[in-house]
Amino acid sequence: MKLYNNAHAPNPRRVRILLAEKGVTEYVTEELDLGKGENLSEHFRGINPLLKVPVLELADGLCLSETPAICRYLDETFPEPPLYGQSRKERAIIDMWDHRVEYGLLWPAMFGFQHISGYFKDRMNPLAEWGQESVQNFMNMLPVLEQQLSQNEWVAGSHFSVADITAVCAIDFARIVKVRVGDEFPSIKRWHEAVKQRPSYGA
Amino acid sequence: MKLYNNAHAPNPRRVRILLAEKGVTEYVTEELDLGKGENLSEHFRGINPLLKVPVLELADGLCLSETPAICRYLDETFPEPPLYGQSRKERAIIDMWDHRVEYGLLWPAMFGFQHISGYFKDRMNPLAEWGQESVQNFMNMLPVLEQQLSQNEWVAGSHFSVADITAVCAIDFARIVKVRVGDEFPSIKRWHEAVKQRPSYGA
Repeated sequence: MKLYNNAHAPNPRRVRILLAEKGVTEYVTEELDLGKGENLSEHFRGINPLLKVPVLELADGLCLSETPAICRYLDETFPEPPLYGQSRKERAIIDMWDHRVEYGLLWPAMFGFQHISGYFKDRMNPLAEWGQESVQNFMNMLPVLEQQLSQNEWVAGSHFSVADITAVCAIDFARIVKVRVGDEFPSIKRWHEAVKQRPSYGA
Repeated sequence: MKLYNNAHAPNPRRVRILLAEKGVTEYVTEELDLGKGENLSEHFRGINPLLKVPVLELADGLCLSETPAICRYLDETFPEPPLYGQSRKERAIIDMWDHRVEYGLLWPAMFGFQHISGYFKDRMNPLAEWGQESVQNFMNMLPVLEQQLSQNEWVAGSHFSVADITAVCAIDFARIVKVRVGDEFPSIKRWHEAVKQRPSYGA
């Protein structure tokens, strides 16, 4: 397998952490410099017409993109430990939380970065006001996560899951727009410390 | 089962169409008037802390929210016909396309509506410029979908899948911001006609 990667972007990190949790090391990475627009080439358009990383290229040449699709495929391919749950209901609750933190934390953090920093202004139209609004949307989600983590060890319940991976990638990435989760969220802080202790955190 | 529903919003429609495709009729709906803010009550906050529809309440009282989590749970519960694919690779490709059209079409259409119309301005800060940008993002996704549908009968390949449901709900909803898929996209038009012929379309 080959992972089209970027070391700083949150979505490729989701895949790398998931692979580390599975103990999968037999893959190569190809680093794309997004600042230089290496993902905008015609060659890469053939790999992913949406020009985004990560992409997972399989042995037969199929190029899978979209992080949730890659992560679920890897979970099915390397089933231990299961990161999408086991019973039907457990899977549904993990799916729900994974989607909640993707829309409620990760995308707002990414919009915040893109629209406040203007880092990609050669290829998009940054709107600072939307960036600020997105940062506020991110903040508005934190009390919901705090409530959940005050009653559960992990984001989707009693087991570490893909929802923890999405959440930690979002929260860490939000530092780039100067958002830090403070002492008013003790359960999130407790959880974040626990995630940091896992060997996969540095992946 | 009980579906907290809104007849005009695209996400509840995704669930209703999926249920219709499965031939599932044994559920009740509770309609929430979003304009009147019926989803903002403290009662509904207990059902979904993110205050969104759809929510699927199961017989044991568990309230599932987030459309993709609901749809996948229903697909597992009512497996025929399979709408998330059968082989591991087929499932991954369907996941990829479902996520592509959710991010590339449905969310831009919803942002367009929310930020241009100001319909929810009592509870959010509409930014017309972001609404226009979102409409443009929607338009930018259409050539990618056209290319895919010029080579495949359905969005994710040779079988109707959940990705078709997400895509048609997005494209139909975009009419509210005056976006119509025109003659420059003959494959999308051919596909849309085929989706309209299915009994589930009116769900």
